[in-house]
Amino acid sequence: MHFVVEASCGRARAGRLITPHGEILTPTFMPVGTQAAVKAVTSDQVAGTGARVVLANAFHCMLRPGADVVARAGGLHAFMRWPRAILTDSGGFQVFSLADLRRITDDGVWFKSPIDGSRHFLGPKESMAIQNQLGADFIMAFDECVRLPSTPEQVRRAVDRTTRWAEACKAAHVRDDQALFGIVQGGTDPHERSRSAEALVAMDFPGYAIGGLSVGESRAEMDRTLEFTVPLLPEAKPRYLMGVGTPEDLLSAIGFGIDMFDCVNPTRMARHGTVWTRGGRIHVTNARFREDPSPIDATCDCATCQRYDLRYLHHLARAGEYLSHTLLSIHNIRFLVRVAEEARRDILAGTFAGLRPASQLAGPPALGEPRDTQAAAVARGTIART
Amino acid sequence: MHFVVEASCGRARAGRLITPHGEILTPTFMPVGTQAAVKAVTSDQVAGTGARVVLANAFHCMLRPGADVVARAGGLHAFMRWPRAILTDSGGFQVFSLADLRRITDDGVWFKSPIDGSRHFLGPKESMAIQNQLGADFIMAFDECVRLPSTPEQVRRAVDRTTRWAEACKAAHVRDDQALFGIVQGGTDPHERSRSAEALVAMDFPGYAIGGLSVGESRAEMDRTLEFTVPLLPEAKPRYLMGVGTPEDLLSAIGFGIDMFDCVNPTRMARHGTVWTRGGRIHVTNARFREDPSPIDATCDCATCQRYDLRYLHHLARAGEYLSHTLLSIHNIRFLVRVAEEARRDILAGTFAGLRPASQLAGPPALGEPRDTQAAAVARGTIART
Repeated sequence: MHFVVEASCGRARAGRLITPHGEILTPTFMPVGTQAAVKAVTSDQVAGTGARVVLANAFHCMLRPGADVVARAGGLHAFMRWPRAILTDSGGFQVFSLADLRRITDDGVWFKSPIDGSRHFLGPKESMAIQNQLGADFIMAFDECVRLPSTPEQVRRAVDRTTRWAEACKAAHVRDDQALFGIVQGGTDPHERSRSAEALVAMDFPGYAIGGLSVGESRAEMDRTLEFTVPLLPEAKPRYLMGVGTPEDLLSAIGFGIDMFDCVNPTRMARHGTVWTRGGRIHVTNARFREDPSPIDATCDCATCQRYDLRYLHHLARAGEYLSHTLLSIHNIRFLVRVAEEARRDILAGTFAGLRPASQLAGPPALGEPRDTQAAAVARGTIART
Repeated sequence: MHFVVEASCGRARAGRLITPHGEILTPTFMPVGTQAAVKAVTSDQVAGTGARVVLANAFHCMLRPGADVVARAGGLHAFMRWPRAILTDSGGFQVFSLADLRRITDDGVWFKSPIDGSRHFLGPKESMAIQNQLGADFIMAFDECVRLPSTPEQVRRAVDRTTRWAEACKAAHVRDDQALFGIVQGGTDPHERSRSAEALVAMDFPGYAIGGLSVGESRAEMDRTLEFTVPLLPEAKPRYLMGVGTPEDLLSAIGFGIDMFDCVNPTRMARHGTVWTRGGRIHVTNARFREDPSPIDATCDCATCQRYDLRYLHHLARAGEYLSHTLLSIHNIRFLVRVAEEARRDILAGTFAGLRPASQLAGPPALGEPRDTQAAAVARGTIART
């Protein structure tokens, strides 16, 4: 993997990531295919959104179909029929949030499979072996992510453990065609973030992720944390904010110097009939769209907006048709991919303004929320970011 | 609508149907989009299967989104974004099979909506008004379909009612860009089928459907009924066997002179992980496909077989991914469309053999079931045909 920062605008930057599966222009949004499939969307349809990287989860893939099965199929790219880049999460976040009856040791975590109750162990060595088998272009260190709020002691212990496990990951990782990213933890505590970042930067990872955000803290806390954490990371390495998020989150975080994002929001919201527009989030099931002949967003170039209107999408969502999941997911993924693309264009042009506070909004409405409610929504953190 | 029989082979025939939305080569299989959407498949993906006609149900569309809503959207073609031909069922079958608390009068049926319990009335006049609003190329007379077995008296009464209602439909139908088909009822009774066909043929419909099959009778009874019913219909008009079916059903019925078919089987089976292959029906969730690198069917030209292998489809179906519904539906629809296409090719070449009994099978395995179990499967009527 090779990374170049091409331009900056304030702290925001535009870059270029070269991987064995193509070039990625940053900032970039990566849709999530937890179980080696973006929910309800074919790989061709995902490619049509302009997404250059898809995420898959080591935790889910190890349980089903099994990392060995994927490896024998030629790795995730061949298995999923996705020719572009892939990033796998280490399983750290999932094992702490999804698995039952866990026991944590210095070497990892014992847990019960949520699929069949079978017992498994996952630690840095196991995660690296699995991610090496899955064969993604970007792989993540096995970390401990605490929910917020947590006690300072919990945060400190998670940072120590994440640091030790990052070392173990680095030692265990064997494939030089995969870029292993370290994950900075530390909650919203500047001291802990700084301890975590320093230790990881000393290990010289090819890229760094910021974990432990979008886990229950307020939007202001996330911004504050990014503000002091991003400068702790090397300029020349890509920076990935995990599990984020919304159009507002992306714009704000790009303004702090983040290059990569992933989130289940686009597909999860779609399954609930919710989509983003330039004028704000809307629920297509709302009665006011029953006979609306407009596309979701007249300025959107996604395959759904190019072809389907709100009245049909309203009907599909109300009728519980699977097709609704597909068409709304395509729109939402494209929407976030485009937020990143337009931020990049503005950074290259030197005009990137980030997420402007509602009080300063003068031009066209900002993305994602109607102008007058944007600040309120930001304060509320309306959309779950995990 | 214009219909030409181009060639015959025994009683099987190859034809050409000209509609305001394109030409249809017959025999043809029409996938079902009950609620104005083929489940889990976009209109582009449906078009990619080679399907030339899609079915929608007046019963479902009147309840949601409402025929008036569809009419104001420009009709079903515009609403669904499906540029090819559409056929709507009259609602007769559905009102008798899906609705609760009905009361039947000479003019139609009172029923409760399965969606919200609201009260509705549907009869020949209402069905015509609705189907005129929906704007399909083919529309169906409002009929009464009895489940089999039924008493002779029930069958007789349903034939009488269907005949009266067909007259009422003909009188109420106002759009000459829509071809109204009469539906022959009469269960498995030659006398009743004959009464029904004679009365309808006297009304000179542009096409005829055979209803009331695939509703619980054995495969042998269906064949016997087709054998004496099809010759009662005019040679020069298209013949449509409703709610059928499977590869075997198609081949058999084409051999009796049927031109058009529809069935929910391809999409419903797909949602249960079941697909057709030249070697027989298979369940992709079966453990033996866990690491199978082959497509569903190596001889299949569908978008799924061109790109995905069984091990991935096995994983998707086991993991409950929506994408499995999409990919398996595309395959199953293409499979039936192709059965019809190949039958047509063989009819034109004068080599169409229909569904051969297992004892006569000499060449490559017949479609749909492994050679040695084909006769057994046919006798069993393994796959629900409604």
